[in-house]
Amino acid sequence: MELQVLLRPIFFFFLLTSLQQSSSARILTISKPDRHDYAASARWLVSQNSWGVLSTLSVDHEGAPFGNVVSFSDGLPEKGNGIPYFYLTTLDPTARNALKDQRASLAISESPVGTCTRDPMNPTCSKLTLTGNLLILEEGSEEAEVARKALFTKHPEMIDWPEDHDFCFFKLEIIDIFLINWYGGAKPITVDEYLHAKS
Amino acid sequence: MELQVLLRPIFFFFLLTSLQQSSSARILTISKPDRHDYAASARWLVSQNSWGVLSTLSVDHEGAPFGNVVSFSDGLPEKGNGIPYFYLTTLDPTARNALKDQRASLAISESPVGTCTRDPMNPTCSKLTLTGNLLILEEGSEEAEVARKALFTKHPEMIDWPEDHDFCFFKLEIIDIFLINWYGGAKPITVDEYLHAKS
Repeated sequence: MELQVLLRPIFFFFLLTSLQQSSSARILTISKPDRHDYAASARWLVSQNSWGVLSTLSVDHEGAPFGNVVSFSDGLPEKGNGIPYFYLTTLDPTARNALKDQRASLAISESPVGTCTRDPMNPTCSKLTLTGNLLILEEGSEEAEVARKALFTKHPEMIDWPEDHDFCFFKLEIIDIFLINWYGGAKPITVDEYLHAKS
Repeated sequence: MELQVLLRPIFFFFLLTSLQQSSSARILTISKPDRHDYAASARWLVSQNSWGVLSTLSVDHEGAPFGNVVSFSDGLPEKGNGIPYFYLTTLDPTARNALKDQRASLAISESPVGTCTRDPMNPTCSKLTLTGNLLILEEGSEEAEVARKALFTKHPEMIDWPEDHDFCFFKLEIIDIFLINWYGGAKPITVDEYLHAKS
């Protein structure tokens, strides 16, 4: 009986450690919104993901669609504006493609967030595609500064990426939103609703 | 001193439990290949990932690149052939786009595998884009059967997806491979090397 009392705090220490480990893998700062609130659901996916696939039209492959894994950020934690910002170099095809033809889309999944309980393609595991134009931000401009803060806060190692690689800030100007966050096909959501959603 | 001896097995029990939890999230069946073996590295990424972003040219948006989160499989566990198979419905834009223009690419990241220690865009966190043609497989054909086994084994809930959604099997016929698995830009790798790599 005395031993049980002695062991109790040790048990809770290990339990707490296990819980902290599993939650740290998710980086959840905001809880998942009501699935009927499409704009909030889309904004939540953008705020909670740190990477996605940015698709452009390939210069090297005569306009074929070229998806590329990239890191992004839409702002400071819990203060995102919904606009995905990127830090890209023309050493990589995606930036070169966008400077030739700015049409692009960013696709992200709920899967990396850690809240899906079914297959990544099951409609209850949310997915989002933002289609629009991938635009380079003028160096020193106000928006480039917003992008810099957004990216360097979420991706601190970017600060030390090689200067001679000529990384530049880009943003996706959103034209169309494709959201699946439940059964019944893509959800109706306008760019205006998305940009003005309360996160 | 006596208490320490008593606590030791309890400590190891919790340590073991924590390790099991973290490894179950990875679903690693094959260990990561030597990074100098580009073909094996690409095949490993395909075998270890269960979802990626499949990009096509959008019918709805005048040929803009449309990335879409999809589940895929290249075969039975540890017996994959490197060819990504998909189970798509024309209720979804990706299949409709591909039936109009078959050009497509599949992008995947090492990040979901759980073996990246740096930012998802750091070159040490591998990424792969397979560019080619997204082709529908003839119902009842030998290759449709390969696709069915590959997909239904890796994604068992697909078996019960609604029949009236008219899901069909597709494959990506690979034309070009873009692999980053270390510093120094995209790695040289041919489709032939990729398809004949020992996994």
